[in-house]
Amino acid sequence: MDAIEVGVLGATGVVGQQFVSRLARHPWFRCTWLAASERSEGKSYKSVAPWKLSTPIPAGAADRIVDGCVPGRGPKVVFSGLDASVAGDIERAFAEAGHIVVSNARNFRMDPLVPLLIPEVNPDHLALIPEQRRGKGWPGAIVTNPNCSTIVLAMALAPLRRFNIRAVVVSTMQAVSGAGYPGVPSLDILGNVVPFIGGEEEKMQTETLKILGGDGGRAPYPAVVSAHTNRVPVLDGHTITVSVAFEQPPSIDALADAIRTFTGQPQDLFLPSAPQPPLVLMEAENRPQPRLDADLGGGMAVSIGRLRACPVMHARFVALGHNTVRGAAGAAILNAELMHAEGLLR
Amino acid sequence: MDAIEVGVLGATGVVGQQFVSRLARHPWFRCTWLAASERSEGKSYKSVAPWKLSTPIPAGAADRIVDGCVPGRGPKVVFSGLDASVAGDIERAFAEAGHIVVSNARNFRMDPLVPLLIPEVNPDHLALIPEQRRGKGWPGAIVTNPNCSTIVLAMALAPLRRFNIRAVVVSTMQAVSGAGYPGVPSLDILGNVVPFIGGEEEKMQTETLKILGGDGGRAPYPAVVSAHTNRVPVLDGHTITVSVAFEQPPSIDALADAIRTFTGQPQDLFLPSAPQPPLVLMEAENRPQPRLDADLGGGMAVSIGRLRACPVMHARFVALGHNTVRGAAGAAILNAELMHAEGLLR
Amino acid sequence: MDAIEVGVLGATGVVGQQFVSRLARHPWFRCTWLAASERSEGKSYKSVAPWKLSTPIPAGAADRIVDGCVPGRGPKVVFSGLDASVAGDIERAFAEAGHIVVSNARNFRMDPLVPLLIPEVNPDHLALIPEQRRGKGWPGAIVTNPNCSTIVLAMALAPLRRFNIRAVVVSTMQAVSGAGYPGVPSLDILGNVVPFIGGEEEKMQTETLKILGGDGGRAPYPAVVSAHTNRVPVLDGHTITVSVAFEQPPSIDALADAIRTFTGQPQDLFLPSAPQPPLVLMEAENRPQPRLDADLGGGMAVSIGRLRACPVMHARFVALGHNTVRGAAGAAILNAELMHAEGLLR
Amino acid sequence: MDAIEVGVLGATGVVGQQFVSRLARHPWFRCTWLAASERSEGKSYKSVAPWKLSTPIPAGAADRIVDGCVPGRGPKVVFSGLDASVAGDIERAFAEAGHIVVSNARNFRMDPLVPLLIPEVNPDHLALIPEQRRGKGWPGAIVTNPNCSTIVLAMALAPLRRFNIRAVVVSTMQAVSGAGYPGVPSLDILGNVVPFIGGEEEKMQTETLKILGGDGGRAPYPAVVSAHTNRVPVLDGHTITVSVAFEQPPSIDALADAIRTFTGQPQDLFLPSAPQPPLVLMEAENRPQPRLDADLGGGMAVSIGRLRACPVMHARFVALGHNTVRGAAGAAILNAELMHAEGLLR
Repeated sequence: MDAIEVGVLGATGVVGQQFVSRLARHPWFRCTWLAASERSEGKSYKSVAPWKLSTPIPAGAADRIVDGCVPGRGPKVVFSGLDASVAGDIERAFAEAGHIVVSNARNFRMDPLVPLLIPEVNPDHLALIPEQRRGKGWPGAIVTNPNCSTIVLAMALAPLRRFNIRAVVVSTMQAVSGAGYPGVPSLDILGNVVPFIGGEEEKMQTETLKILGGDGGRAPYPAVVSAHTNRVPVLDGHTITVSVAFEQPPSIDALADAIRTFTGQPQDLFLPSAPQPPLVLMEAENRPQPRLDADLGGGMAVSIGRLRACPVMHARFVALGHNTVRGAAGAAILNAELMHAEGLLR
Repeated sequence: MDAIEVGVLGATGVVGQQFVSRLARHPWFRCTWLAASERSEGKSYKSVAPWKLSTPIPAGAADRIVDGCVPGRGPKVVFSGLDASVAGDIERAFAEAGHIVVSNARNFRMDPLVPLLIPEVNPDHLALIPEQRRGKGWPGAIVTNPNCSTIVLAMALAPLRRFNIRAVVVSTMQAVSGAGYPGVPSLDILGNVVPFIGGEEEKMQTETLKILGGDGGRAPYPAVVSAHTNRVPVLDGHTITVSVAFEQPPSIDALADAIRTFTGQPQDLFLPSAPQPPLVLMEAENRPQPRLDADLGGGMAVSIGRLRACPVMHARFVALGHNTVRGAAGAAILNAELMHAEGLLR
Repeated sequence: MDAIEVGVLGATGVVGQQFVSRLARHPWFRCTWLAASERSEGKSYKSVAPWKLSTPIPAGAADRIVDGCVPGRGPKVVFSGLDASVAGDIERAFAEAGHIVVSNARNFRMDPLVPLLIPEVNPDHLALIPEQRRGKGWPGAIVTNPNCSTIVLAMALAPLRRFNIRAVVVSTMQAVSGAGYPGVPSLDILGNVVPFIGGEEEKMQTETLKILGGDGGRAPYPAVVSAHTNRVPVLDGHTITVSVAFEQPPSIDALADAIRTFTGQPQDLFLPSAPQPPLVLMEAENRPQPRLDADLGGGMAVSIGRLRACPVMHARFVALGHNTVRGAAGAAILNAELMHAEGLLR
Repeated sequence: MDAIEVGVLGATGVVGQQFVSRLARHPWFRCTWLAASERSEGKSYKSVAPWKLSTPIPAGAADRIVDGCVPGRGPKVVFSGLDASVAGDIERAFAEAGHIVVSNARNFRMDPLVPLLIPEVNPDHLALIPEQRRGKGWPGAIVTNPNCSTIVLAMALAPLRRFNIRAVVVSTMQAVSGAGYPGVPSLDILGNVVPFIGGEEEKMQTETLKILGGDGGRAPYPAVVSAHTNRVPVLDGHTITVSVAFEQPPSIDALADAIRTFTGQPQDLFLPSAPQPPLVLMEAENRPQPRLDADLGGGMAVSIGRLRACPVMHARFVALGHNTVRGAAGAAILNAELMHAEGLLR
């Protein structure tokens, strides 16, 4: 099989760096084009990317000359790690120019014609793409992945849909890498908790229902979510505590079974980035923990623990996912893998 | 006024150190007796207490010879910072010997004849003391303060009782000082979250209802509490996110008013440790934060922020309190101040 | 005594906030004027200062309208917490307009006519002021305090001058508050060490010798300093390890005596901010530590520990000081107190 | 090639866990025996090892029944992650019983008949083994690796030996994982620096000279080392600042060349754990950093940066190594690989 050429929009940011790092060792995709703002254009990638990963800059990327985010210049398939402040216009322009944009930005997530995709949860939402092309008049397409805290919640709730979820109260403890670079000032977070992340609660409350919903997300899942979002001094890994109410409250054993046996198309298709299994149900009473468990399944698994009855709702648990892997670049790459498997990258 | 002599049981531990430090500058109490385990008996306090506070050991305590926890040896009024593993037997023996034990330990908190006291919230629970003496046959008495996370929740809920609370879902982010010394290993918590604290959820779920309840706590408040408790890499200050459902849901403005105007006997009586006001309602969208707000009111105030509607329950907010001050030694000292004001230390 | 009116240049920054907080409870100075950049001019202080201290904004400052940094507008005595990028021009303009500028900025520190003052160490350097006025033609004056890591080193070395220091190798572990706000990104420092602080090593290597030198610092102390400067995940308090070589190597006991008995004019004059004693020699083998000892002497003392022989140089030790108190605002205020005591603020 | 069977003494501790994890994917060694204290004997490994690594317990180890540390029971080659309090007696007993003990413990490091081995630095020290067998009367043997901070220093100094090092002043910033589990209490190190690690300075000052010395280390390298050792809130990776004086001071370029071209037998023999290259000289002014660089070379490389002239000594730099990999289990495994390549494990 020939490698599929891909590019990265916003390649110098924290999410862009994750794209570059993960694509360098990807079995299907070959990253041949890096684009960023005008400030970086024409310079070598290593000279403009403030590399913050603990793995070195890939050899193939270090000396690559960064291009501008100009439609038509790069390969057909582009990953977007663009900041929301510019992602809207640039991604639209790329889709209009025929590119397939696999985006981590929030701008199009709630667009009724754009899939907000988690391959294990709502692969059927890809059916929106033909409608998107008709509705938008784009020869290309845009597919998005959820916000980094939303994806942890949505994956943990996915196997519980069968019991008819009615309400969810979630409180997050989110890592600083979720805020990009320079992101959270150290004076704000060293030995501290910041009980507010701008826009995050709204994203969890709306994106979750679109993801779990029907008709490509246009029929939101009929539940209500209340999110408390907090920043804590953790580097990678968002931990969430969740209480859930159901229409027909199942036993805790039934919930555990549903989580343990949950699987999806990425696992069936053996997609390269698919974690096996996607959800890891832990028995130890003090797990999951970000330092120990965020890397499970190569950072693509969501771990769940402390599943037990909730005296107020029906069940409660802790869930954890790697926010820059499953919650950003890894999520987008898995989306692209599923799209490729379904012939949508041609 | 003559100073009231007091002693400290468990004086060498983290809570004991807080007692020693705070009593050294107390206007009413004079600490003349320090007791600890046999291992420390007969040695100078400074040589056996692994001092962990950022203020130096008080001059009057440094060279004091530590005594054993033997009833009858110390003054009538003793504060207890004993570990729960030994507090039960020792505190009972002291009460039997006529001492008034103002305890931070958990052992007697849920005893139906022992007040679980927050002076601003349930000063009437002191009425249990005569019954306690009759029921237990103790010439002395035991009065307790709540667990360090419970007190934050109970104080935040106290002004909302008038709206008939029905259910509470709370998720905590607790400081490491709550676990004593050596307490939490650094390998477990540096850059990490531990989503479990042994026994803590049960304490929050039961102690809160006793505190808010009637008849000295024997008629628990008719609500249900669900607690998720987590340890985070913060030194001092427990932060909690709270969602609350009411029987008659009030407006957010009514809740804000209730919090802002909340006050109690400690404030009316100008007790030395009473914060003015006991609850601080913050407007900034990213407050309270432990590093910035745990010391409010000398560490005795509970701060509340982000009061807003909850899409699942009725209202939600963030609350914060200093776990070793309002949540431990400071709480017990305020209890003793109220008892003194009511003539109960004689 | 009438209060002396003072103002603050750069009042909204981290050092400016320290000035505002400390001046609010100062027995001699009354802060009546707050100045900052044009962006803040005309707005209330509380609305433009991103307050980062754990004590609340002083009542008298919160609603004060911030002025621009325009000479002639404020009181005669102004403290400067200005950023180095603008401090040079503004401070000169204020001195030209007759103001006495007590500055924490680095711009004039190495000017041969400007005192780089530590009241306990080189109070005689104030003799430069008449020369400064003649040489610069300023009716006002500028007096500076050292860099936050330099002051810890210079104070620790001051009592050792009598043994003729020849060489010093120092390695620092510096707190993030030394970098201002937003300062060090959390992604760079959480669980990490950054072994570089721009310009810091040069400052320690040159400022120290000016401070310890003669003739107002124009005859640098005849020693050589080598500094390794590092940022560590600590909030407040710079810790340094120091090895020192002497011309006539003294015994460790002689060094300990010199440190223990060190005192200076601030102590003799009972200046309000003077720590008693200025240097605290600790016996415990694992002290000083920033969390436990940075606040000694109200943050104005420098603590020294682990004084012992050095197999390569002659002696070695650990020293610690509070970088935003003794290393910034507190240092400048002590400078002003000494100047007032000497009649230099009139 | 048949796999070589190996065992692990002290398998449940932090270093033991590293052995188990690394051996599980080793191309030459197969770990078939896990031994620990009596408390763990007879139980499954997963039930007694408080697993603290971010990779899961290897499948082959999880259910293995832990044996006692009894000579004769396990395979000929055993790695020792034993605590120093018990390592002396147990390791001697194993050597007497014919085992080859590849130890990370400190007990025999300074024994004149026991190699203190870094394969890149002093492979010739393995020549001690026949003498050791004669002198001790052991049919087996003991080989040790250095202390976790010493190895970083010794590897950084190794290429500089040719310039005749005379004196070294080193100050460390060491990770908490170096102290084992539970190790450093979080109350001691969160947002703090502890400027003392028991016994560590002596180890750096003596082990370094044995490693760099001649005649199997019995002729210590003729230089003097002064070490300041500090604990900082970092998880993995010891950072050190180093100033060095030489007999014939070389240019900085000559030092850089020596570091860049340094290599050794592990690299020539392509030993499985050998980093290529062993020393990484970094150009960026703010590197190395533990979070970004500790994993270089699979955690086996030592990175060096900020190489520059020292105004007091001759040269200075920063060095960094992964303390539980290159500084513990990885070091011992590389030792065993070299021994195997030289036919010493038969």
